[in-house]
Amino acid sequence: MSAEIEFFFDFSSPYGYLAAESIEEIGNANQREVVWKPYLMGALFKKFNLTPLVNSPLKGSYAKRDIKRTADYLGIPFTIPEPFPVNSVSACRAYYSIVDDNPQIARKFALRIMRNYFQLNINLSDSENILKAASEEGLDVRVLSAKIENDTTKERLRFEVDKAIERGVFGSPIFIVENEMFWGTDRLDQLTKWIVSGSW
Amino acid sequence: MSAEIEFFFDFSSPYGYLAAESIEEIGNANQREVVWKPYLMGALFKKFNLTPLVNSPLKGSYAKRDIKRTADYLGIPFTIPEPFPVNSVSACRAYYSIVDDNPQIARKFALRIMRNYFQLNINLSDSENILKAASEEGLDVRVLSAKIENDTTKERLRFEVDKAIERGVFGSPIFIVENEMFWGTDRLDQLTKWIVSGSW
Repeated sequence: MSAEIEFFFDFSSPYGYLAAESIEEIGNANQREVVWKPYLMGALFKKFNLTPLVNSPLKGSYAKRDIKRTADYLGIPFTIPEPFPVNSVSACRAYYSIVDDNPQIARKFALRIMRNYFQLNINLSDSENILKAASEEGLDVRVLSAKIENDTTKERLRFEVDKAIERGVFGSPIFIVENEMFWGTDRLDQLTKWIVSGSW
Repeated sequence: MSAEIEFFFDFSSPYGYLAAESIEEIGNANQREVVWKPYLMGALFKKFNLTPLVNSPLKGSYAKRDIKRTADYLGIPFTIPEPFPVNSVSACRAYYSIVDDNPQIARKFALRIMRNYFQLNINLSDSENILKAASEEGLDVRVLSAKIENDTTKERLRFEVDKAIERGVFGSPIFIVENEMFWGTDRLDQLTKWIVSGSW
């Protein structure tokens, strides 16, 4: 198998969710493993004193419309949830508690909580909703619940966030393959060309 | 003919240029007039205290790479010029000096000066280069030269810039058709769907 596709996203990012619905198909079709790397855009915004897109005075209202239009264009069920955006710390901790032992299930879990949030308005920041989704993926909720609160898990998430920012990740979704970076669901076509042809 | 497509861009914007190479074809294929409305993103940045994308600390270097990669993906010859970005006031004034009498030639002139800048590194901010391009479109350079310096033209440009900002235009390219706004060359597919189907 050739080099993996790294997929950086925030669980609370609509464009990240839309990418999550497409990226595995692209990986499978091209024999590339996709490594899901959720991180916290909040940490990035804080560090660089940035404003989330949807709160930006000029682009915010456009962005909300564009997200829904893009979802419809891609044929993906989508409603902007309320509240939005939300804190995705619990979701991230849960993911990193699962992924080392069960990478497949971790990805299914990740997609499930995003679908819950962006299709069914089930709040992603609520730990109970996170645990319920984990249980629906057949995971042991008592074990996971303890792991989420574990210092090792907290440290792991901080490490993953710092590493993402250090590597220049600044948005959601961002893909990196063979050191080439692609930002946005609207770059999946260029990403596909890259992995098929080996260059842009 | 159905409602026109308004095409807002800054002459110095690479993504605006890439859109300029595609939008007429989309308009022609769908019997829609495209009304080119160059404006000054500098005025927008000043008004809202914003930073141009390519100077943004996180996104800047990505953006430069993405622009070239996107141009190659679209099959459009492109080199990031030097200097870049430049002031496009003269280019805008020239355009608005031409467009009322000669809309067709004004569009050809606009595309020519962008091709000169983004393909041949001919500085877009230099009035001599602007006049030379106008002459190559068969325009009377003495008449145009006087018009560019005319107070009426300066006032017209200020009016167009203010109107664009007032209507919520915040980037380049931005398209508006039947009150629906599309931002970016990567939304030309959604724009096309809109004008074909009448909705998103």
